[in-house]
Amino acid sequence: MDEHVDESHPRYNSLMMRKKISNAGQKGMLAESAMIAHGRGEAFDYLLGEQTIPSAMDATREIAARLVAAQKPVLSLNGNSIALAGPEFLKIASQLGCPIEINIFYRTPERMGALIANLKLAKQNLGLDVEILGGMPDARIPNLDGPRGACHQDGIFNADVVLVPLEDGDRCQALKAMGKDVLVVDLNPLSRSAKFASVTAVDEVTRVAKNLIKFIAERPTKTQWDNEKALQDALNHIVGTMSNHYNQ
Amino acid sequence: MDEHVDESHPRYNSLMMRKKISNAGQKGMLAESAMIAHGRGEAFDYLLGEQTIPSAMDATREIAARLVAAQKPVLSLNGNSIALAGPEFLKIASQLGCPIEINIFYRTPERMGALIANLKLAKQNLGLDVEILGGMPDARIPNLDGPRGACHQDGIFNADVVLVPLEDGDRCQALKAMGKDVLVVDLNPLSRSAKFASVTAVDEVTRVAKNLIKFIAERPTKTQWDNEKALQDALNHIVGTMSNHYNQ
Repeated sequence: MDEHVDESHPRYNSLMMRKKISNAGQKGMLAESAMIAHGRGEAFDYLLGEQTIPSAMDATREIAARLVAAQKPVLSLNGNSIALAGPEFLKIASQLGCPIEINIFYRTPERMGALIANLKLAKQNLGLDVEILGGMPDARIPNLDGPRGACHQDGIFNADVVLVPLEDGDRCQALKAMGKDVLVVDLNPLSRSAKFASVTAVDEVTRVAKNLIKFIAERPTKTQWDNEKALQDALNHIVGTMSNHYNQ
Repeated sequence: MDEHVDESHPRYNSLMMRKKISNAGQKGMLAESAMIAHGRGEAFDYLLGEQTIPSAMDATREIAARLVAAQKPVLSLNGNSIALAGPEFLKIASQLGCPIEINIFYRTPERMGALIANLKLAKQNLGLDVEILGGMPDARIPNLDGPRGACHQDGIFNADVVLVPLEDGDRCQALKAMGKDVLVVDLNPLSRSAKFASVTAVDEVTRVAKNLIKFIAERPTKTQWDNEKALQDALNHIVGTMSNHYNQ
């Protein structure tokens, strides 16, 4: 963005995330719609108070438990997830010993190349050993047309548990239809992805990634998870802010 | 955007507006933050059901009444307003016989030039006689630092009634402090602009502009307007969608 932002600014974190998106856009990592998608997320995060609400923290712990218990977990990342929390997801993949598969909605060789290069550089800087998939897809997600359906046999195709932050509804539904445990991060508790997921953390992706690093280290155990309850809890949090906001 | 969109698509209007923003960005009319701001608006419009709710229609009628009754009205437009509804605002200015003043948050000569050129071309195409201000500011809005405070003596500075769609809170507050009647269009009923305004239409700017053209022609009369009631009504509409959304 064009403005200098002081650390004391009440919306410092939000503005720093915007800067990450903006920088990634300039590096060719993002489709044009990425900025708009980020803005939509900002609006929902604003409604949540730009904080991890208790039900989102519980969902994040459940996501950690399922990733730890998985036979073949995989982190499926899109451009915005990599722009906002690439290093954190590398750390998570390293903790789990699982691959990251890059999967982008508007696939071009240039954008895929920029995303792979970005993650490989970050991996080198962090000294982590993580397999990065996405560049040479050799399988397809059934019932998902076009480049969105392309995936790796050793990655998403054969995974039992998939973490898909900021995923679109169609793809989320198609992964669920393959019988996978689908773990979603989405700030919109009404979205199709949020609904189709096995577990949805209604929270901002960098906060979720940081919390996941902490939870995975604790190796929590799975619970009886009621995802609709968690989604309604997030809605209720927003409703609480909006009800009787203006005194009349 | 990269995708072809069919007119039968349930979100056709929303996707067309996105296309307008994207095209305007390519023409140099918008700051980088414009796409993010548009995304935030999309999220709130989604929560409103992408429709003009009754209280927003009432607010739009009240805005029309105040513009019609004004001594020296002015339309203060930013980049996104021009990108989304430039021709409609030209029509409104022509109905009222008032100027349009372009006022942008991140002012550069290039962006201002692109916006002026865009409106002048649209004006020519529509065969309308409307004065376009903004290029040569000769006055300042008190208590508003930097380029945002620059304005025209014959435009915003001496206006009694100002329509400011998609305005930032600081500028809205500064205009109110000058004693002006400040009419806002904002999809976020919690925003500072929405709160500071004399009348706020919580609605999408192209829908408001089209409704204003209709209402201004009818020359409605001013009412006792309770803006907080209208804002709470918009919040209540969203709350209605969110309460008990998920059956448990």
